[in-house]
Amino acid sequence: MEEPLERLQQQIQFLVEIDKLKHIIRRSPLIGEKRLENSAEHSWHVTMLAFVLLEHSNEALDLLRVIKMLLIHDIVEIDAGDTFLYDPTANQDKLEREEEAAQRIFGLLPEDQAQEMHRLWAEFEAKETPEAKFAAALDRLMPLLHSYNAQGRNWQQHGVKADQVYNHNRSIGNGSDTLWTYAQTIINEALAQGYLPTSNQTSEVLERDFDTIQPNAEGKCAE
Amino acid sequence: MEEPLERLQQQIQFLVEIDKLKHIIRRSPLIGEKRLENSAEHSWHVTMLAFVLLEHSNEALDLLRVIKMLLIHDIVEIDAGDTFLYDPTANQDKLEREEEAAQRIFGLLPEDQAQEMHRLWAEFEAKETPEAKFAAALDRLMPLLHSYNAQGRNWQQHGVKADQVYNHNRSIGNGSDTLWTYAQTIINEALAQGYLPTSNQTSEVLERDFDTIQPNAEGKCAE
Repeated sequence: MEEPLERLQQQIQFLVEIDKLKHIIRRSPLIGEKRLENSAEHSWHVTMLAFVLLEHSNEALDLLRVIKMLLIHDIVEIDAGDTFLYDPTANQDKLEREEEAAQRIFGLLPEDQAQEMHRLWAEFEAKETPEAKFAAALDRLMPLLHSYNAQGRNWQQHGVKADQVYNHNRSIGNGSDTLWTYAQTIINEALAQGYLPTSNQTSEVLERDFDTIQPNAEGKCAE
Repeated sequence: MEEPLERLQQQIQFLVEIDKLKHIIRRSPLIGEKRLENSAEHSWHVTMLAFVLLEHSNEALDLLRVIKMLLIHDIVEIDAGDTFLYDPTANQDKLEREEEAAQRIFGLLPEDQAQEMHRLWAEFEAKETPEAKFAAALDRLMPLLHSYNAQGRNWQQHGVKADQVYNHNRSIGNGSDTLWTYAQTIINEALAQGYLPTSNQTSEVLERDFDTIQPNAEGKCAE
């Protein structure tokens, strides 16, 4: 067992270290200005989604656990960097890089707290519990709102197509049918407004999917 | 009672509106680089303090309520701006400006949620409940850590003196004696390192205070 002062110093060292999350830049543009979002402010925003949108979860859940997961879900990016959702190459070794980061960064904390955070982070990544599924849904929904409200600027910059957006966001339904139904209206609207590039293949996929939207039934998928 | 879709749209409108908190710039420099902190990333960071430092609260408390307070405590700044702790003029009409902001911004939400957030924000501002006292202590501690880790750059830029730092941070003891004792070692160290400007008067005050530090007894004050 560590001494009380040593314990506090470990906690402070961790809290100072995670200031670095403010330097990790994501691909999401802020609403109303051209600066890109960083992972610390994203973590705040998506935690606010949990607070406000809790009632839309498919399953009853423990809000405090959802909030804890969302507060820490991106801390590994301090070492591992932000991995763009639509970049298949970077996603290949994402888990390995992030696991090492979790060991180092959570490891700054006293042992019991390091274990709690590591467990919460692993639970979030596994997306199996009600809390993790809902947290992951919110972590998908917010970037969609950002991209839509920035007229799809980042989709266009990175050549992201409508079928990719649709497929990557289907898992919102695993946490919340209501929010996945809502997300589909956003994707539809983005298409209608020309914010989201389509291809012929894409259009077919989307037409089929949007013709047969059955909220609460279709639209869920494994990660 | 609003319709379900209307309710969700109000919630989303609020969540999009609070993106603006990422544009509100504080006086705290980030650790390790010259950019100033914004209020959204600060809100995340100080909420992380609640998660990690909970055991140091003077009183038993409900962590979820502390976290909710800290997540929303600065949202009023979207309209009212950030008020620098050491600026007496701006602090004069702070409450009035912030009350108007709370009405407008929380008012975007469905009525029940607007009321909950308004109540939590007012509770935080009043600093009377155990949760509010602890949340306020963390909201003071983090800027101190930032300023110390930036070698007092912002204190020097704004002509802040050691006695001001000492007096403004004493209320940390209302939430946590342990953290106030720790904060005093930081202020002491900042003085020793020359990060914090002193005056003759200042030095006297500080020598007296630091000679008689009685953690858990002295050092608390009303706001």
